[in-house]
Amino acid sequence: MLNFEFSNPTKIIFGKGQIKKIKREIATNHKVLLMYGGGSIKKNGVYAQVMDALSEHQIVEFSGVEPNPSIETLTKAIALVKEEKVDYILAVGGGSVIDGAKFVAAAVPFDGDPWDILAKGAKVRSALPISCILTLPATGTESNGNSVVTKRSTQEKLPFASPLVYPKTAILDPEVTFSLPERQVANGVVDAFVHTMEQYLTYDVNAPVQERFAESLLCTLIQEGPKALSNPTDYDVRANIMWAATMALNGLIGVGVPQDWATHAIGHEITALHGLDHAQTLAIVLPSLMHHKRDTKANKIAQYGRRVWGINDASDDVVIEQAIAKTAEFFETMGVPTKLAGYGIGPEAVDGLIAQLIKHNLTAIGEHKDITPEVARAILDDAAA
Amino acid sequence: MLNFEFSNPTKIIFGKGQIKKIKREIATNHKVLLMYGGGSIKKNGVYAQVMDALSEHQIVEFSGVEPNPSIETLTKAIALVKEEKVDYILAVGGGSVIDGAKFVAAAVPFDGDPWDILAKGAKVRSALPISCILTLPATGTESNGNSVVTKRSTQEKLPFASPLVYPKTAILDPEVTFSLPERQVANGVVDAFVHTMEQYLTYDVNAPVQERFAESLLCTLIQEGPKALSNPTDYDVRANIMWAATMALNGLIGVGVPQDWATHAIGHEITALHGLDHAQTLAIVLPSLMHHKRDTKANKIAQYGRRVWGINDASDDVVIEQAIAKTAEFFETMGVPTKLAGYGIGPEAVDGLIAQLIKHNLTAIGEHKDITPEVARAILDDAAA
Repeated sequence: MLNFEFSNPTKIIFGKGQIKKIKREIATNHKVLLMYGGGSIKKNGVYAQVMDALSEHQIVEFSGVEPNPSIETLTKAIALVKEEKVDYILAVGGGSVIDGAKFVAAAVPFDGDPWDILAKGAKVRSALPISCILTLPATGTESNGNSVVTKRSTQEKLPFASPLVYPKTAILDPEVTFSLPERQVANGVVDAFVHTMEQYLTYDVNAPVQERFAESLLCTLIQEGPKALSNPTDYDVRANIMWAATMALNGLIGVGVPQDWATHAIGHEITALHGLDHAQTLAIVLPSLMHHKRDTKANKIAQYGRRVWGINDASDDVVIEQAIAKTAEFFETMGVPTKLAGYGIGPEAVDGLIAQLIKHNLTAIGEHKDITPEVARAILDDAAA
Repeated sequence: MLNFEFSNPTKIIFGKGQIKKIKREIATNHKVLLMYGGGSIKKNGVYAQVMDALSEHQIVEFSGVEPNPSIETLTKAIALVKEEKVDYILAVGGGSVIDGAKFVAAAVPFDGDPWDILAKGAKVRSALPISCILTLPATGTESNGNSVVTKRSTQEKLPFASPLVYPKTAILDPEVTFSLPERQVANGVVDAFVHTMEQYLTYDVNAPVQERFAESLLCTLIQEGPKALSNPTDYDVRANIMWAATMALNGLIGVGVPQDWATHAIGHEITALHGLDHAQTLAIVLPSLMHHKRDTKANKIAQYGRRVWGINDASDDVVIEQAIAKTAEFFETMGVPTKLAGYGIGPEAVDGLIAQLIKHNLTAIGEHKDITPEVARAILDDAAA
């Protein structure tokens, strides 16, 4: 096992009817920016529950945070926070709204151009406090210090991380996910699955707790994912997916083990250039990446095939082939195509994607830093059709 | 899944050579009480590492915290803290030292008789900050808010819990466990195993993440425990046991699921009356409790038998019998006898243990509150020989 440090200060409040508890989590002397997306929270009752719970708070609203939140939109929120002297942000929505809130929280006290936090890795030295009410289980952002923001004008999608932007409290009520569109449910399951794989499918450092925890999440997502599509109001199914997605990226399963975020790195470029949903890009890249990195990942792919998929063949080669196929099949079963062609994107797009990776210095990625632009090209060529 | 709230503020610093980092975790303006046990930290080099790291701090030492820390001893520490105006406690040792530190931290600002915190459940309203350097993986106290203290004069062993006594930082260096006596290693593995079982072996609430996480820890302890005895300086083995023991009782695997702490409740009385090691009492009670509660725990014991022990029989009854036998066998393999007779205690001791349970109002324990004194008597009678 590798040395590590781990702490996760976010308080999770999980379950039915828990949204009202946000009242006791934010002191009434705070002026709160309520950030949300396209207005679905007004249809599913979440907005009303929040406003009811915060009836004693001073609230300023900022709506319209889009999927893959843009700095163009968030800059307006930053201006509003400064103008209204807001001192607390409550994000109500999915990963995009919460990621957007984290950026706003860090940008408001930032001295300089906030884009530098993303583009130049400028250090975040202070941030407004954030809490969140999660409506879409997927990214894990509800209890981590990560955020991804897009600049539409230059088609760049970049991450930042800071311990200062962990939400103080995250409320997770699985019932609010009953009304999600199928595509968002499927995307969430795929996203959480790939987060887990990127902290698991590397090389062995003798860390059985972390490996088995990862396998626990993968098994749960495989078991519960399709049920969420076929029976959208099954509370336990929704609860299990929601908890698995949080655990997939709260830092725990990745302690003391090597990680490989190449699928995310390549996927971000597909979203930036072609506007695909984040999870769609992961479903395209991961199976092809597994195929092309099967030399260095062989032991772990075989373990994954046996423990997660129950493939019993004595030959590692057979298990590995089947495990990769099962992975792609699972994404397809969730309604998420695993080839660029499935989204109407032709093989000629690969050049542009490789150019983006080079532009962002992502020329040596993966746990061995051996996914060069050439390897990424092979992965994307295979993922084309 | 049941509703839950979860947060764990302890920062974990894990790995080789990490003890020196305690320096940056405690501000130098604190006056620190260094609490430890019988002096083994002076032999294994931990004391020297700590003193070196804290060379710029003002330190007051308190040694001699015994296994199953007593209020008689801890009262002296409380007096020392008040006299020396100490404002931070650093516990260096195993569960007993850390539990003792938690009690001292809560007792110092307590208004009244501190024993009331244990005997009357008096609320802890403030506590001195604590950090710890763990030398014995077992109890999980390094990252939870629980503590157990014994009053020797009345032979009582009672717990308390407060969010205020979570250690701020816990440093876990597996190398410091190389020199532990076999008995302590074995006890630690058994303790962590039983903690996991008590949050797992109840009834089904459809919580696959929690169940599989628990199974992950059980598999790890079964795999690594005997290796720690046969090859005490294998770093990865020690690291895996240490991390499993922390995860077994940091609150995570028990969120949203029913719990059954009857084994601990009964075990505490055995330690209080007969002075057995904590883990020894758990090894005595658990297999017998599984046998006597196999009606209400049948599904989970069968799942445990199949997933954790790989027992493949089609009959649940066969799997359950074998799973109970395997559990006792595992404890015996670790060198921990599973019958009272193994410690020279005769069946006539059962009366006294039942009287203690009644005295402490532990007359309806277990996840269904159906372990009455009669059931506890049957469990102990069977555990006698």
